[in-house]
Amino acid sequence: MGIVGAGQLARMSQPPAIALGVELRVLANSPDESAARVIVDTRIGNYRDLSDLQQFAEGCDVVTFDHEHVPTEHIRALTAAGHAVRPGADALVHAQDKAVMRERLTAIGVPCPAWARTPSAEDAERFAGEHGWPVVLKSVRGGYDGRGVWVCRTPDDIAEAFATGVELMAESFVPFERELAVLVARSPHGQGVSYPVVETVQENGICVEVLAPAPDLDPELAAQAQAIALKIADELGVTGLLAVEMFQTADGIVVNELAMRPHNSGHWTIEGAVTSQFEQHLRAVLDMPLGSPQLTAPVVVMVNLLGGDDPDLFKRYEHVLAHDPGIKLHFYGKEVRPGRKIGHVTALGTDLDEVRARARHAAVHLVTGEYT
Amino acid sequence: MGIVGAGQLARMSQPPAIALGVELRVLANSPDESAARVIVDTRIGNYRDLSDLQQFAEGCDVVTFDHEHVPTEHIRALTAAGHAVRPGADALVHAQDKAVMRERLTAIGVPCPAWARTPSAEDAERFAGEHGWPVVLKSVRGGYDGRGVWVCRTPDDIAEAFATGVELMAESFVPFERELAVLVARSPHGQGVSYPVVETVQENGICVEVLAPAPDLDPELAAQAQAIALKIADELGVTGLLAVEMFQTADGIVVNELAMRPHNSGHWTIEGAVTSQFEQHLRAVLDMPLGSPQLTAPVVVMVNLLGGDDPDLFKRYEHVLAHDPGIKLHFYGKEVRPGRKIGHVTALGTDLDEVRARARHAAVHLVTGEYT
Repeated sequence: MGIVGAGQLARMSQPPAIALGVELRVLANSPDESAARVIVDTRIGNYRDLSDLQQFAEGCDVVTFDHEHVPTEHIRALTAAGHAVRPGADALVHAQDKAVMRERLTAIGVPCPAWARTPSAEDAERFAGEHGWPVVLKSVRGGYDGRGVWVCRTPDDIAEAFATGVELMAESFVPFERELAVLVARSPHGQGVSYPVVETVQENGICVEVLAPAPDLDPELAAQAQAIALKIADELGVTGLLAVEMFQTADGIVVNELAMRPHNSGHWTIEGAVTSQFEQHLRAVLDMPLGSPQLTAPVVVMVNLLGGDDPDLFKRYEHVLAHDPGIKLHFYGKEVRPGRKIGHVTALGTDLDEVRARARHAAVHLVTGEYT
Repeated sequence: MGIVGAGQLARMSQPPAIALGVELRVLANSPDESAARVIVDTRIGNYRDLSDLQQFAEGCDVVTFDHEHVPTEHIRALTAAGHAVRPGADALVHAQDKAVMRERLTAIGVPCPAWARTPSAEDAERFAGEHGWPVVLKSVRGGYDGRGVWVCRTPDDIAEAFATGVELMAESFVPFERELAVLVARSPHGQGVSYPVVETVQENGICVEVLAPAPDLDPELAAQAQAIALKIADELGVTGLLAVEMFQTADGIVVNELAMRPHNSGHWTIEGAVTSQFEQHLRAVLDMPLGSPQLTAPVVVMVNLLGGDDPDLFKRYEHVLAHDPGIKLHFYGKEVRPGRKIGHVTALGTDLDEVRARARHAAVHLVTGEYT
């Protein structure tokens, strides 16, 4: 099985691949990348170069992705050449192009914010006039982790976003109570499963913490959120994982973003679910029966490790592991840079406050050396 | 971290190494071996050749083992050359030489069967005369999985065992009720942890099934078994894992065998314990604080996959995974040969009969295609 891209998502696919006897191949930019360090069959190449992609796909039973940046036309070319690519281009484009995604979700009746394509700053100002300020501008392609999103409160803010020169669309600002995420898997056969709805906590547009299941969520709303995610997977013909980021508002659920791969909001599943998202993605893209998404503990909390000023985290391992023999650490084999996702920690238990405190303690201490 | 040997134990060490950010190197006989398929830094060499071992150890922070067949004098030479080898030669010899092991366990007061070094068939017959028939002859070095063990009921049986020419010792036959195993870890600092006592079910000297925790075990006897294992680890100066195979008899516990590495009786810990034996071994040999050995479910059953007549197990994946979305499969990337350990399956739950039936169903179907 080939994975285009060699970041932490490909890296974390190796453990379940080892268990299932699936041999992975990754396309990396360099042999130092996160997944290249742990996968024997690493090919070096450029995911924007069709001939590199073609050479990479040769001999793979199926090709999937670590990220969404492979040009859609290249994916179509691989498929035309007879390669099994999952998710396929027709599905993946909805995770690559936010305007295409909004068009489609609106067409199938999924709740979205008001939105419009806004080729010019004037279009965006007109949109704000109709739907009210602030207005959210998003780059149609290529944004992630808060990059490519501008919350504009004035025409000057709009002008600033347009000064970047990237293609922008507008969405009305959603006054949300909290952010939720639903991870579902769908196989080519059409089997689907949904993990429990989780709450995601973001800072500066980056996910810092995930609480599974989402605390105190009305079971009806949870079922509705899962139904929306499964419907999107089915309507879009997703094969593999689909992460649906949502806003919970006073009026219900509004869909924010889509990702078609293992997702940061699902890292808790490695220990916290019977089948991890990484195993589930392998099973889905290989068209094997899907695994149970059941929780292994009543409460699971995942906290991201975002690089701080000190590049050497290893020296603080001892305290963290000695302090909490149940804490689970995950490192991505990446050099520490401020703000970069370099790993995550997971804690499991029965009491949310206690489990959250354990996960935060480990994460804060590892990055800063401080005690919380 | 270097692992001498590239079998399934080294292979299953790669997932926790990936999580903890520990880079593994293995010494393999060939690039097709189980662990060599999944570990980037694979060196090809002969574990009986000191210069291969020296070259392998160069640059490793610590060296450990996938098996116990490295000559003791080579381990001493590596240590003398300044390499950290864990477990060390003085501990490991007790897992390599059964007579040395019996001498030491007897000296520290651990319950053993009656035993004697028996250089000749006459010595063995004299032993049988003193301790009664049957008598168990064991090769002092190199036996495993039932190989190197002869249960002798007559002098002819003894003569047959001695005809092999290997060095033999005698033990009295233990009329046991069942077999138990205790897995403990000890770090160079001297921290120790014990996993719950498990029951192991053997057929033809090969472990086929492990039940965790051992069903209906008297808590006092369980505590006694754990205390024995921790005492052995401490007295022998073990660093890393120690598996102690035991007989439960009407009169209590008798120690059967020792292994100083991750062990088949601990494969259930991958999903069934907060810290898997593979993660625990890494933590112990790296002198990091040890992890929690707590169960993640009330009942865990592991069944070995022993190769049958059909080399292609993959085609039966679908039924097994579809039948039981909670079953966990592990394949070792080995060619199927009749009787060879090629993988294992693990089931978790609350009811022993149900969990055992699930694990057996998966294992039997994968190997034979039959439905149980």
